[in-house]
Amino acid sequence: MTLSDEFLGALEDLCPVRGKEAVAALDPGFYPDNLAAGVAAHPRTVSEIQAIVELCRTHRVSIVPHGGRTGLAGAAASMPGQLIVDLKAMNRIEKVDVVSGTVRVQAGATLQSVQDECASHGLTPGIDIAARGSATIGGMISTNAGGMEAFRCGVMRHRVLGLEAVLPDGSVFSDLTCVTKANEGLDIKHLLIGAEGRLGIVTRAVLKLEQLPLATSTVLTSFENAAGAVAAFHNLRAAGNLLRAEIMWRSYAESVAKDVGLDDLIASFDGNVFVLFEHEGATQQDAQTVQEDVLIPLIEDGTISYAIVAQNDRQASDFWRIREDSWAVERQRPGGYWYDVSVPLEGLDQYVGELENDLKNIAANVHLSCMGHLGDGNLHVTVAGSDGVHPDKELVDHAVLSRLRLKGGSFSAEHGIGLEKMKALAAYGDPAKLRFARAIKQAIDPESLMNPGKVQS
Amino acid sequence: MTLSDEFLGALEDLCPVRGKEAVAALDPGFYPDNLAAGVAAHPRTVSEIQAIVELCRTHRVSIVPHGGRTGLAGAAASMPGQLIVDLKAMNRIEKVDVVSGTVRVQAGATLQSVQDECASHGLTPGIDIAARGSATIGGMISTNAGGMEAFRCGVMRHRVLGLEAVLPDGSVFSDLTCVTKANEGLDIKHLLIGAEGRLGIVTRAVLKLEQLPLATSTVLTSFENAAGAVAAFHNLRAAGNLLRAEIMWRSYAESVAKDVGLDDLIASFDGNVFVLFEHEGATQQDAQTVQEDVLIPLIEDGTISYAIVAQNDRQASDFWRIREDSWAVERQRPGGYWYDVSVPLEGLDQYVGELENDLKNIAANVHLSCMGHLGDGNLHVTVAGSDGVHPDKELVDHAVLSRLRLKGGSFSAEHGIGLEKMKALAAYGDPAKLRFARAIKQAIDPESLMNPGKVQS
Repeated sequence: MTLSDEFLGALEDLCPVRGKEAVAALDPGFYPDNLAAGVAAHPRTVSEIQAIVELCRTHRVSIVPHGGRTGLAGAAASMPGQLIVDLKAMNRIEKVDVVSGTVRVQAGATLQSVQDECASHGLTPGIDIAARGSATIGGMISTNAGGMEAFRCGVMRHRVLGLEAVLPDGSVFSDLTCVTKANEGLDIKHLLIGAEGRLGIVTRAVLKLEQLPLATSTVLTSFENAAGAVAAFHNLRAAGNLLRAEIMWRSYAESVAKDVGLDDLIASFDGNVFVLFEHEGATQQDAQTVQEDVLIPLIEDGTISYAIVAQNDRQASDFWRIREDSWAVERQRPGGYWYDVSVPLEGLDQYVGELENDLKNIAANVHLSCMGHLGDGNLHVTVAGSDGVHPDKELVDHAVLSRLRLKGGSFSAEHGIGLEKMKALAAYGDPAKLRFARAIKQAIDPESLMNPGKVQS
Repeated sequence: MTLSDEFLGALEDLCPVRGKEAVAALDPGFYPDNLAAGVAAHPRTVSEIQAIVELCRTHRVSIVPHGGRTGLAGAAASMPGQLIVDLKAMNRIEKVDVVSGTVRVQAGATLQSVQDECASHGLTPGIDIAARGSATIGGMISTNAGGMEAFRCGVMRHRVLGLEAVLPDGSVFSDLTCVTKANEGLDIKHLLIGAEGRLGIVTRAVLKLEQLPLATSTVLTSFENAAGAVAAFHNLRAAGNLLRAEIMWRSYAESVAKDVGLDDLIASFDGNVFVLFEHEGATQQDAQTVQEDVLIPLIEDGTISYAIVAQNDRQASDFWRIREDSWAVERQRPGGYWYDVSVPLEGLDQYVGELENDLKNIAANVHLSCMGHLGDGNLHVTVAGSDGVHPDKELVDHAVLSRLRLKGGSFSAEHGIGLEKMKALAAYGDPAKLRFARAIKQAIDPESLMNPGKVQS
């Protein structure tokens, strides 16, 4: 299926358009089919987006909104006959209000550009993900992005004060309040957040800002188990100044350390669970003092098995490399299965223990790798076999996902549903919730103009 | 219009029911018409609520869900021919998970009961409002309650991890996750939060908990204007340990102080704006030391005009009385107009200044009283004339409300729409948002079974 010449001609009158070859030159991002539509519109204003939506309605062409194409679940995947609406030309940071602690941005601005602009005022949007350089604010809103700061600043949903979007009927939803408290009837904004572009195209947002940490200190710690890590986390949090707490099970840390040449570092630690804690202070030395004050009692009472405070930026960057170079797991065992789940903190050890057992029963030599954001209980789980022979995917899916609902966790933590988790949503989502969502989609986008074929459509 | 004997008979078979006289004996709460329906069902289980909804569908009787009846906007107002479904019999605190930092409660539990139970574990739900003794968790979710801790812990929406509700079709929406990160398709939970009972009856919730402050210290400060108060707020927040920051303009503080016999205290302060800051510490003395450390430089550089640190509980309680006994304003000038608005912090002085000017032009001797939650820019505004003669309400409404949208504020901050703000919503709400909300209501509750006649129906 291809777009008609009539449609393409009319589209070119509205805004810059990339055809097949020009689209092929773009970075497709993580998901292979992101650019499969082969045609992308690059609007520069909200009015241009309205005109595109009108044109698509007339020609019954469905729209796949694109931000930075950094999503891991396939929400931006497209097909021939669809139109990609790429927001990256709308990337202005319109207003930083330092006194009120807010920033108003266009949807195509990258997280990095917003972080940089806010940092020049001593502020931060309070959210950070590894794909900061390409991920856009609109994409992060549409997927309700998470990341490393969520335990203290919330996920993207909690950073958004105001939102503007073009709806499937071409009208502009404009709720650009700059305040935390605004109870003005049904909060439609919160329905658009995390909707993966299925209810409209996010065009602009007002985000809440936080004070930018002045200086930081990083410590790598190890624990007998996750329960010890959680106890330390609560202690450190109560003492104040804790910025980040990233957890890694030993099998993950060893895999990455081997890949990046830091085996000796990891081998010097006891315990099955590692945590990277980052603290803030007026200077790096201050941050380190705060950190040591709270860590020493935990080392003395045996909660922490072993700890090394990074003595300089290079050592801190080595520590973070082990956490952030998660792709090393894939390099070592290509083709494994990746999951993104949440588990209440109380149940972390039990969850991982049960999973290890299940995997042993599924096949021999299965490698389980877990790491993630400790404060949220958000685990990124990888399961892979040896020598490219992987265990049965359905059995592994079941082992990883089936216990989560009963535990109060989630089969879909921070990456969203997209195409990847549609089956899991059907299996583990609440039926009444799915019916409710379908009724909304039907009411707001009866012709399924916006990002069809995804989630529960 | 009255309910048929057949309906009442069937209802009595389902759950305990109060008829006219028994209902009249209940506390109607703030809003006069809350009990006007004259019949209340008191279900004890989710199944009983489902059966009530089924019965009401069959008999075309509409439902007004009730929590603690502490709402100030009239969302719980009822009419003869409707059925009140009172949730207060479902008040169990089902599970406090200390390690994960969560509590699962039934909707009818009061905030106070949840606070008390959590406090016994050193935890707090991170939200507090003056009506804590009667306000229920379900009511607070349905109105998305705010209060004094919102600038650091968010409003009710940000406290809710999981939600259960009976929908208009009688099905149970069950999304009782206990984790922050759960991106599982359209987030229907966030649509039910703040819906004022128009999309379903909230029956159960999982709330996120925070560490309970160990001890506190209170200081009453004054400033030349709100800009100074905001500057101090940012300084104090960055220094850490700040729990509360409540702002009062002089005319408010003087009105209440006179009423409660604390005129001398207020008279000793310079400046037009007062702020009560509450800090936390391991002991009261620690909290006071933290507080003094951050306040003294602000006094020395002239940002703070005057400050008194409460030396004991009695003095702290006097300070809080001035903030909390806002009803004194009504006692002094009965029949004034009350508003609940949000203003971005940068615009506080300008907003109040413009309002003062407008009111002068509307009538002579108009008394303006402003106080609220500094960190959110949430102001409770009262406008009253002298000797019971009040200025024209439409003109005052316009003066208080009309500039807010352009400033990025809100005409409806934390009390909700109910009946009180329907006119304001029609005037200042975004038309595309209102259409979206109506389409959802129509799709989910086509027979308008749930709390009809309110908000934008």
